[in-house]
Formats: sequence, C-alpha cells, structure tokens
Amino acid sequence: MTGQDRQALRRQFGELALDIVRRRGIEVTLAVLASEAGVSLARMDAIFESDDDLFDAVTEIWYAPLIAIMEDVLASELPANRKLYEFFARRFAHTRAIYREDPAYFRLLCELGGRRFEQVRSYVDLADHYTCEIIAEAQAEGYFEGLSIDRALTLINQMVIAYTMPDMLTMIDERLSEEKLAAIIDTLFAGLSARDGGAKGVAGLRAA
Amino acid sequence: MTGQDRQALRRQFGELALDIVRRRGIEVTLAVLASEAGVSLARMDAIFESDDDLFDAVTEIWYAPLIAIMEDVLASELPANRKLYEFFARRFAHTRAIYREDPAYFRLLCELGGRRFEQVRSYVDLADHYTCEIIAEAQAEGYFEGLSIDRALTLINQMVIAYTMPDMLTMIDERLSEEKLAAIIDTLFAGLSARDGGAKGVAGLRAA
Repeated sequence: MTGQDRQALRRQFGELALDIVRRRGIEVTLAVLASEAGVSLARMDAIFESDDDLFDAVTEIWYAPLIAIMEDVLASELPANRKLYEFFARRFAHTRAIYREDPAYFRLLCELGGRRFEQVRSYVDLADHYTCEIIAEAQAEGYFEGLSIDRALTLINQMVIAYTMPDMLTMIDERLSEEKLAAIIDTLFAGLSARDGGAKGVAGLRAA
Repeated sequence: MTGQDRQALRRQFGELALDIVRRRGIEVTLAVLASEAGVSLARMDAIFESDDDLFDAVTEIWYAPLIAIMEDVLASELPANRKLYEFFARRFAHTRAIYREDPAYFRLLCELGGRRFEQVRSYVDLADHYTCEIIAEAQAEGYFEGLSIDRALTLINQMVIAYTMPDMLTMIDERLSEEKLAAIIDTLFAGLSARDGGAKGVAGLRAA
C-alpha cells in the first residue's frame, strides 16, 4: 500500500466512522469499524495503528473545513476587526449547522472530543496562532493598546468562548447569533487595552 | 410536624444528600437517603414530596451563599464597574474553592445540575435580575450607551460566561483568574455600546 493509498483509506474509513457515530450513537473502535465495513481487523490494523489513530483520522476530517475557513479569513484583505469577526463567525455558523442538523450526533461528538482533549489541542493551538496574527494586525492599526499579544489572546478567547466551545451550542444555541458576536467584537475593538479601568478596585480598599 | 420543623429537616437531609454525593459519587434518591440516614422511606416521604423535591432542597443549599453574595454586592455603595466586577468575581471565587477542594464531586454536581436545568433556572433568573439592576446603574453613570437593558444583559452574560458557567472550571480553571475577569469588565465599561463598530461589515459586501 502506498502512502497515498493509505491516506485515501484513512479518509474513507474515518468518514465511515463518523457515519457510524451518527447512525448508532456509539464510539467507534477499529473492531466496530471492521465489522461495519465487512473487512478483517487485520486490514484495519494495516490502515490505523490504534483506536487513537482512528480518532486522529476522524479529527482531521472534522477540522479540515474549519482550518480552511481560518486560512481563507487570514488571507483576506479585510481590516482587523472584520477579520476577527469573520474568523469566529464563519466557524460558528459552520459548526451550528452541523449541530442543528443532528443535535444528538453533535452532543456525542462533543463528549468524545472532550474526553480526548490532547488530540484536539493541535487544532486549538493553530486557532490561537492565527488569532495572534489578527491581533498583531489590529495592534498595527492602533487597537488593543499596551497589551502583549498573549494577553490580548487570552482575554479575547475568554470573551468569545460562547462562540468557540462547541458544547455551548448544546446549552444556549437559541441565545447565540452572529449579530451578538459582532457586537462583542465591536466591544473588544472599542474597549480592550492595557488601561486599568478600575473594575478590580484598589487592594485593601475593602478593609478601609 | 410544623412548617418550621419541616424546613429544618429539609435542610438537614439536603446537606446529608450533598455529603453522600461527595462520598459515594452517586445521584441521591429518597430511597438512598433514607437508607443512609437509617430512617424509613415513609419518614422521607413526609419531608420531601419526590426525588425532584429533594433536588430542590439541595439546590437551595447550594445557591444560598451565592445569593447572599449577590445581595451583598447589590446593597454596597460601589460604583457600577466595581459592583459588576464583585458581582461576578466573588461568586467565581466561591465556586472555584469548592471545585478545587474536590474536583470529582464538583464535576458530578455540574452533571446533575445540567440534567435538571429547569430547577436551577430560578437562580439564573435572579442573577439576571440583579445584573439588570447594575446595568441600570451603569447607564445612569453614562455607560453602555444606547443599549436596552436586555440587550446589555445578553452581551455581558456571553462575555463573562467563562466565569459564570461552573463547567468551565472543570475545563479551563488554570486559565481563569480574577485579574482577567477585571480586564474583561474594564473592556465592557470602555467599549460596550449600541454603536456599530463595523465588525460585521455591510451586507452584500462580500459579494462585491
């Protein structure tokens, strides 16, 4: 089997695994996959090293369109505020469409993904990397004054987490909208800086 | 049994139920509670109408200190930005302390609470009610210009959800801090308004 053949088979069986999750509502092992596909387990073992490796192949299929969205937005000529909005909004809309089409399937994927956070971390790291690029562009335009890129990253990630953590759709879908996300991004661009606005107060004040 | 006696017993057995959840890692029914307490199920039935009613008693115990925190903050003389910060930060610190003391117990409570969202909704509604009061005070001070209170409420709730949804602690505790929450509140006070900052762009622009 050439590397190219193997890659194509990984994709094919990874898609079958997702389909089984959807139809049967179970986590798919290589044994289940072999049985569903009507091939020997030995054949599966030639394509995937382990159940974890199968999960990696599925993860790759899941994230491919999200990575394409991020790369499209990064390559665009938009100003930083438009870019940051599209960066989050397009992935949110993509994910929400999958959720709404089959909420039970989506919930199960969230559960499976949550249990294997290490394997989805590389996607999270890539998203962070791209967010940092947009932050740098925003700072070149004069926004997020005085903040290190890492600091801006963590604050932005926390303020938009309702739109990036898939589990949120299963809890508050009806409250989430692109239009509110846009208002949040507008708030960030208007208000996020290193300036201490005094919300935390002065240490010891409470005792005074 | 007087109403007062019954109330005291509900509290006593509600606390025992929480203790059983912590020690045994299981959801507690009236049958389990009767067995653990060494009393008859008939006795339990005189105190609680149903398993749901037991859950209500437990919910009341859980939320009592959080409601006290909210009421303290509301009654304080702080300016609106300090008030909004303390409103979220004190409840966050209280909840985090419970999480850190016993993460497995906390996870189970999140799971049980998530399955019975209707029963915790009245707490959420009360928190929203108080948040609206702080928003009104902020607007009297000149902040959140042009926004309806409901609109400010939903945007603020989404931007601080990392600090209000207990499940978040189980996922990203190490990334959450009072100091970042303060920066988020500062950002809200500096940047949240009805002004369209342009993040969403103009409809049809993308096609042009």
